[in-house]
Amino acid sequence: MPDAAIRSVSAYDARFPLPPGAGTDSVHTNSEYSFAVTSLAGENGLRGTGIALTLGNGNKLVCDAIEMLAKPLAGTAIEELMADFGSVSRKLADDPSLRWLGPHKGVVHLALASITNACFDFWAKSRCKPLWKLLLDLAPGEIVRLLDLSYLEEVLNEQGARELLQGQMASRHRRIPILQSGYPGYDTSVGWMAYDDQKVRDLTQRALGSGFRAFKLKVGSDDGRRDLRRAAVLRECIGESGALMFDANQRWSLPVAIRMSRDLAVYRPSWIEEPTHPDDVHAHAVLAREIAPIKIAAGEHIPNRVVFKNFLQASALHYVQADCTRLAGVSEFLAVSLLAKKFLLPVVPHVGDMGQLHQHLVLFNHIALGHEISFLEHIPHLRSQFVFPASVADGCYKTPQDPGASCDLNLSLGDNH
Amino acid sequence: MPDAAIRSVSAYDARFPLPPGAGTDSVHTNSEYSFAVTSLAGENGLRGTGIALTLGNGNKLVCDAIEMLAKPLAGTAIEELMADFGSVSRKLADDPSLRWLGPHKGVVHLALASITNACFDFWAKSRCKPLWKLLLDLAPGEIVRLLDLSYLEEVLNEQGARELLQGQMASRHRRIPILQSGYPGYDTSVGWMAYDDQKVRDLTQRALGSGFRAFKLKVGSDDGRRDLRRAAVLRECIGESGALMFDANQRWSLPVAIRMSRDLAVYRPSWIEEPTHPDDVHAHAVLAREIAPIKIAAGEHIPNRVVFKNFLQASALHYVQADCTRLAGVSEFLAVSLLAKKFLLPVVPHVGDMGQLHQHLVLFNHIALGHEISFLEHIPHLRSQFVFPASVADGCYKTPQDPGASCDLNLSLGDNH
Repeated sequence: MPDAAIRSVSAYDARFPLPPGAGTDSVHTNSEYSFAVTSLAGENGLRGTGIALTLGNGNKLVCDAIEMLAKPLAGTAIEELMADFGSVSRKLADDPSLRWLGPHKGVVHLALASITNACFDFWAKSRCKPLWKLLLDLAPGEIVRLLDLSYLEEVLNEQGARELLQGQMASRHRRIPILQSGYPGYDTSVGWMAYDDQKVRDLTQRALGSGFRAFKLKVGSDDGRRDLRRAAVLRECIGESGALMFDANQRWSLPVAIRMSRDLAVYRPSWIEEPTHPDDVHAHAVLAREIAPIKIAAGEHIPNRVVFKNFLQASALHYVQADCTRLAGVSEFLAVSLLAKKFLLPVVPHVGDMGQLHQHLVLFNHIALGHEISFLEHIPHLRSQFVFPASVADGCYKTPQDPGASCDLNLSLGDNH
Repeated sequence: MPDAAIRSVSAYDARFPLPPGAGTDSVHTNSEYSFAVTSLAGENGLRGTGIALTLGNGNKLVCDAIEMLAKPLAGTAIEELMADFGSVSRKLADDPSLRWLGPHKGVVHLALASITNACFDFWAKSRCKPLWKLLLDLAPGEIVRLLDLSYLEEVLNEQGARELLQGQMASRHRRIPILQSGYPGYDTSVGWMAYDDQKVRDLTQRALGSGFRAFKLKVGSDDGRRDLRRAAVLRECIGESGALMFDANQRWSLPVAIRMSRDLAVYRPSWIEEPTHPDDVHAHAVLAREIAPIKIAAGEHIPNRVVFKNFLQASALHYVQADCTRLAGVSEFLAVSLLAKKFLLPVVPHVGDMGQLHQHLVLFNHIALGHEISFLEHIPHLRSQFVFPASVADGCYKTPQDPGASCDLNLSLGDNH
């Protein structure tokens, strides 16, 4: 296999204004979806693109961190890099100065997410495969060498990870048909916080017409009665058979989370998402016990595999919403997926990438790890910005066929700086 | 009282090269102590200075975040700001865009630390008092209004915090004499990782001659036998009566931490510091049980009050090493000190400020909260950089008398940009 070299590394700050009210929730009131983009240039036009999501202001900080952190990648050969990417990732994450700014969280970790995702995109393109196929074609040992499993040793070491992957090989063929069938999306864009009831109704009707059967509603209003009213509206629109999720975006204290979750139970949520502070493992564990059998989802603000491990050890969540634009990219996403498998919990990503990269990763998780896909979040607002937007028809994600990780943006380099 | 106004806000990037080997530990191999400085300019030369520590590369990111986050402070009156600083702090911490970069951790939280510390310095100078005296002169209700206690509600609410402070008022007079006596420092600078055994011996002899009786040694070497040898050297130098602490700076996995802590027990450490990943509450709790009665200290990388709450709830540490240059400044430091009091654990700050600001805070903690001071960390390398360096004589910190929080630096604005 020819070993393509990364000739240069650059970062750019791409920001996209949203339609009025879109992207709003209980704590993010003026979102401007933005990507801190890593661009790896190779020869013959080969280019790897990696993204990490931010909400506008501050996106430049992540770009600046990318420039600092990614310097050592220029001049390296991609096959050599990816043959032991776990070590590469650990070395970048433990930069002796920059790690003080985390460690393994915040701006520097978002930068690492973007860089890592660019490496995987570059790698997949250099092998002319969509990312899901590249990953499925690797042997268990090759997958494990992509991962930094440090600080997980007492729960999941390299041997355990290999065995976990190996154990799923024999049954892979039963899960391959998903590549033809696709899998359902769920719609997050019907219930943004700033939308009034009529807009929720209209958007939900339209989404039902497009084949969606699962929906998310933002909760955590100043007045809890507004949440209950909106929940009733949405439940009425989608009928008893539709799936409904409530997302509080960290707004509630533990006592309020207990009360509101119980009040919302009548609308039969599939989960309550981010009920309280994302660092508060203990509060999530207490809540899980207090509101059982209602399920808890969290992850878009769980910064790294170590904190996920703590959530899993404490039985503090039921749906693992790992996000490869928050974790240290594809590789830490895979490490968390292995952890989740170990704890027998499903991975349902939060899509900071608008589902572009995660559509590959959930296929890998389904086929190679036996993580049954229930559905994948779908947020349509940035569709036109991607060169190869995810193909979602009749409410279902279709398997991407273009080489790479589907993160190339339509803007030319130099825009939006 | 005249209400001084903040006229303008600026940030600057101050970096200080260290002597060879100084500041090195198991993960930070080339430290350049640096402050992301917030400067608040008032009238008649009044200037508030706040600092947050970083290790060089990346310090500019924190400065840039300060510029973004602190904008709303320009034009505000300091008494009005500090009358309800808890709300101000929460609002800054929950900036709708920038909070995505944390929340409440990493670059944006370090920026908030620096900003908050500048506000307290400006406030103390405007009242012509050293910070410790300003804080001691406030009523319990005024202290509580400085604090953002959100996400602590089930453990410590405003009423609980007021009662805790009120409950210590009657016995304050017994603790006031510390203002005359001072209190011991412990020396972190004898045992940096890169120092050879002879240098450790020489520096320890000199520190003993200067009156120090407590010392820290960096551990977490690639080869654990080096840690054991150095521990033996230092224990021999200081004799049986000296206090000795070991600091692994997060290097060990849980299994290694258990083994190394047991091996080091023979040198009778007062504590093992940062044994493993700072986010791993569960691992610290397991370790605490496994190595009892050896004590665990942690905090310099615990990002906020919520994670401290989790550590306390899990009995995962014994010494609370809160650092007001890592937490959101003086106010979150005080919130964590109240939490620690609630859990009956001592606060022994990590001094990212080289002890300049913490010398005030431990006096407040001792007198107003009844947190007995055992000793305060002392790191001498930047003494000459401060306008009013902490006065440490015969191994003891003396009470600072100059107005403010002792963070003004000797460099003029414009240096080190």
